[in-house]
Amino acid sequence: MNVVITIDPRDGRRRETDLRETSDLELNSAVARASVASVWLSGLARPDRAGMLDQIAASLESRRAELVATADSETGLGHARLDFELSRAIIQFRMFGEVLRDGGYVEAAIDHAAETPLGPAPDVRRMLVPLGPIAVFGASNFPFAFSVAGGDTASALAAGCPVIAKAHPSHPLTSQASGDAIAAAVREVGGPDGVLAVVHGQSAGLALVRQPAVRAAALTGSVGAARAIQAAIDERPDPIPFYGELSSVNPIVILPGAAAERGSRIAEGLFASFTGSGGQFCTKPGLAFVPSDPAGDLLVEALRAQVASAGGAVLLNERIRDAFLDGAARLERAGARVSARPDITPLAGFAAAPTLLEINLSEMSAEIADECFGPLLVVVRYHDVADLDGALAVVPPSLTGSIHVEPQDDQAVVRRLAGSLAARSGRIVFNGYPTGVRVSWAQHHGGPWPSTNSLHTSVGATSIRRFLRPLAWQDAPDWILPEELRDGFRQIPRRVDGRLEPDRP
Amino acid sequence: MNVVITIDPRDGRRRETDLRETSDLELNSAVARASVASVWLSGLARPDRAGMLDQIAASLESRRAELVATADSETGLGHARLDFELSRAIIQFRMFGEVLRDGGYVEAAIDHAAETPLGPAPDVRRMLVPLGPIAVFGASNFPFAFSVAGGDTASALAAGCPVIAKAHPSHPLTSQASGDAIAAAVREVGGPDGVLAVVHGQSAGLALVRQPAVRAAALTGSVGAARAIQAAIDERPDPIPFYGELSSVNPIVILPGAAAERGSRIAEGLFASFTGSGGQFCTKPGLAFVPSDPAGDLLVEALRAQVASAGGAVLLNERIRDAFLDGAARLERAGARVSARPDITPLAGFAAAPTLLEINLSEMSAEIADECFGPLLVVVRYHDVADLDGALAVVPPSLTGSIHVEPQDDQAVVRRLAGSLAARSGRIVFNGYPTGVRVSWAQHHGGPWPSTNSLHTSVGATSIRRFLRPLAWQDAPDWILPEELRDGFRQIPRRVDGRLEPDRP
Repeated sequence: MNVVITIDPRDGRRRETDLRETSDLELNSAVARASVASVWLSGLARPDRAGMLDQIAASLESRRAELVATADSETGLGHARLDFELSRAIIQFRMFGEVLRDGGYVEAAIDHAAETPLGPAPDVRRMLVPLGPIAVFGASNFPFAFSVAGGDTASALAAGCPVIAKAHPSHPLTSQASGDAIAAAVREVGGPDGVLAVVHGQSAGLALVRQPAVRAAALTGSVGAARAIQAAIDERPDPIPFYGELSSVNPIVILPGAAAERGSRIAEGLFASFTGSGGQFCTKPGLAFVPSDPAGDLLVEALRAQVASAGGAVLLNERIRDAFLDGAARLERAGARVSARPDITPLAGFAAAPTLLEINLSEMSAEIADECFGPLLVVVRYHDVADLDGALAVVPPSLTGSIHVEPQDDQAVVRRLAGSLAARSGRIVFNGYPTGVRVSWAQHHGGPWPSTNSLHTSVGATSIRRFLRPLAWQDAPDWILPEELRDGFRQIPRRVDGRLEPDRP
Repeated sequence: MNVVITIDPRDGRRRETDLRETSDLELNSAVARASVASVWLSGLARPDRAGMLDQIAASLESRRAELVATADSETGLGHARLDFELSRAIIQFRMFGEVLRDGGYVEAAIDHAAETPLGPAPDVRRMLVPLGPIAVFGASNFPFAFSVAGGDTASALAAGCPVIAKAHPSHPLTSQASGDAIAAAVREVGGPDGVLAVVHGQSAGLALVRQPAVRAAALTGSVGAARAIQAAIDERPDPIPFYGELSSVNPIVILPGAAAERGSRIAEGLFASFTGSGGQFCTKPGLAFVPSDPAGDLLVEALRAQVASAGGAVLLNERIRDAFLDGAARLERAGARVSARPDITPLAGFAAAPTLLEINLSEMSAEIADECFGPLLVVVRYHDVADLDGALAVVPPSLTGSIHVEPQDDQAVVRRLAGSLAARSGRIVFNGYPTGVRVSWAQHHGGPWPSTNSLHTSVGATSIRRFLRPLAWQDAPDWILPEELRDGFRQIPRRVDGRLEPDRP
């Protein structure tokens, strides 16, 4: 099979690695090992599975320097950002350890046998059980937190499902090193080989989701990648769930009061949010609605000044760089005027210039609202807040919608706009920026198509549910029930005869 | 448009109704009304929505005589069964009223702003919100409990989603009358027209799921119907969730101890379960594994006697009757021997003779394990419990798997078989029969493909989640949050800073 290539985006230099693209035989063998591991993993008691996640966190921590250096050489995202991202990934494994210890995620429910208006009813008990081996497709833009060591892997392993991770070609060495760190931790706790495997190459990725033993797939990537994976899944006789986190414009509305009160701080925040990590976040704000008034002029002026003096942003790979340049050109053809773009020459490797575009709300169109991945923001100037709902209606549904308000802004307007944003996004952000997704129980990272292809979130405690299915036991003898469903067990929250009973630790 | 026809399956007579197939214009208008109703319904406070469901239950109750008589004339299922089924449907609406009052289903979660190892984190609050208008496809075999007034409608309305129900052509008048009863109740509580609509005709059904405003679809029906609906959904630019409850063989394993201890009672139970309502239940047991020993012989003998003296079963429509006859012939060609089949002549309307087939485990094949909808059971005789796992592996995954055991049966064997059944079904039944699905909080009605096309259940409290999506609020002012997410609110269970807090009513 082909040698796997790694490319430094700072200079575009290609280098052969020791890795090879995964062959059909190797893939079959990885899936077979995952099937075996599935039995071990789903049989592991929740506290022991939590211990395994803690061990994985420790293993990643112990290789921090190597992982960050490798990721930096493959992505150009810089040590500080990657160090932070690795911490985020590590904390994510620890959080799922807590989710497992809490145990509420299994949704244990018991309805005792009873006389009902429909006659005698049997004893029915239900909880969520693991699906089986999961295919995880890593993202280019998050070599840790949305890749082999990312949220999909953490939530799948927490659910009790082995993971076969397809490495993103933008960071194969980081992916392999992450996988090695996880596999080492699994060995430490006595787990088998197949709990986590990393595969390389596009054809291995598509073959992976056609494997009968694979029970679900998760992707953070493009609509195009999702289409290719879905087409491969559609070749199966049995449909499997496919959770894709895809494309997002993340509109942000600045109301007049907010622009007047803190326009220059908003300009700083916006600049940081749309240029950070080369604007390569799925939550990057791509459209900002700014009032056409003196405060709005000052805000845009401040933004323009920052963009004009910015340096080049190293993008992750050649395809992303080209798509960024094409996207910017497309927006300009659609009528957006260049408001600021520093003249940086020469641009080494896959670097590109941050770009601020501007347009009036009356010129707004679906083309203007198309996502351009990378350091680009379109400022849309509006005269009347009443026109914003109509403009938001042409923006594709997104992961997030943000709104900046101050007490002097009309509450009725805020309420209406928040409603419009809520209808078209998965998270509404007030007086903040959509980038920087908090890792926590209540977090949600999803939204209507095309931001995702499903209703489910890839961040937060409930992301574990994507890899679980409900199973009911009717009139089962006590000894055959999982302990979570036995009468005496009180260590997790359960719903008993319709009434929620918290745990008694 | 074409006049809608109703057919009495007892004599096969066709009769024109006052209904017409829904035109494109009428469909557009129904969907437009549903979109308007969506705003009203999602804005209705939970307790008021619960009140609406109670009103629907009362409205159905007040029309009981008319509904049951209409359904009997269209389905031939008999007054007793239909009376019971209508009660089940009514109780289902009331149960979702309780689910709404409890409020745990919104999964309210609050993570307060905090200093974290990753720095200061914003306040994040999450709950589930309604999807929007839902397309519900009624089933032929449950004119109430899985049709217009069924679980999909009840859970969608409970979720806050209007329903456009496609009437099953086997009971258009029952569907229309059910819809009228629900619509009357909605008017009673001041709701708009579009909360529930009934449409007729196959092309209206397919056009329905192509409507941009429709946000999800639910079907209880055949794999073929699911394919047609999925193909229509695939024409949309945006994918929508489609929950199909499809095909199920429901294997039942009788262990030697159980056969010895209570063989004749098992024969009675099996007979009732596979012939009740003409064997037209998605949970009908289609395969029974019975030991090849004297106790097993007695069991089969008793079963044979009951089948031999049974009367004809009126099937729901011509297509189901023909498919039943074809299915039985197919099983016979695959090697199953007729063990008992009463010679009933003449068979009026769409009646058919209950059929007991028999085969040895060594002759078992995938063809034998194919679902045959209707009053037919294949008894598979086995010599060694060790062979059962292999035989179960060729049975398609099902909604249910059942096992009859007694203390004298080996616990290790029971454990292994229960594991095999659990891996291939959504509900495992001990010492009982899969038909008669309890309506309760812990109930689950789903299973791996082809029993369903998704991981989600169409019965039980959690079926509401199919029609909800998560939405997160970041740093939102208190006055814009739904009351369920405000700090002071304690009337529902919530997860606050990762810790479950039960409600304080």
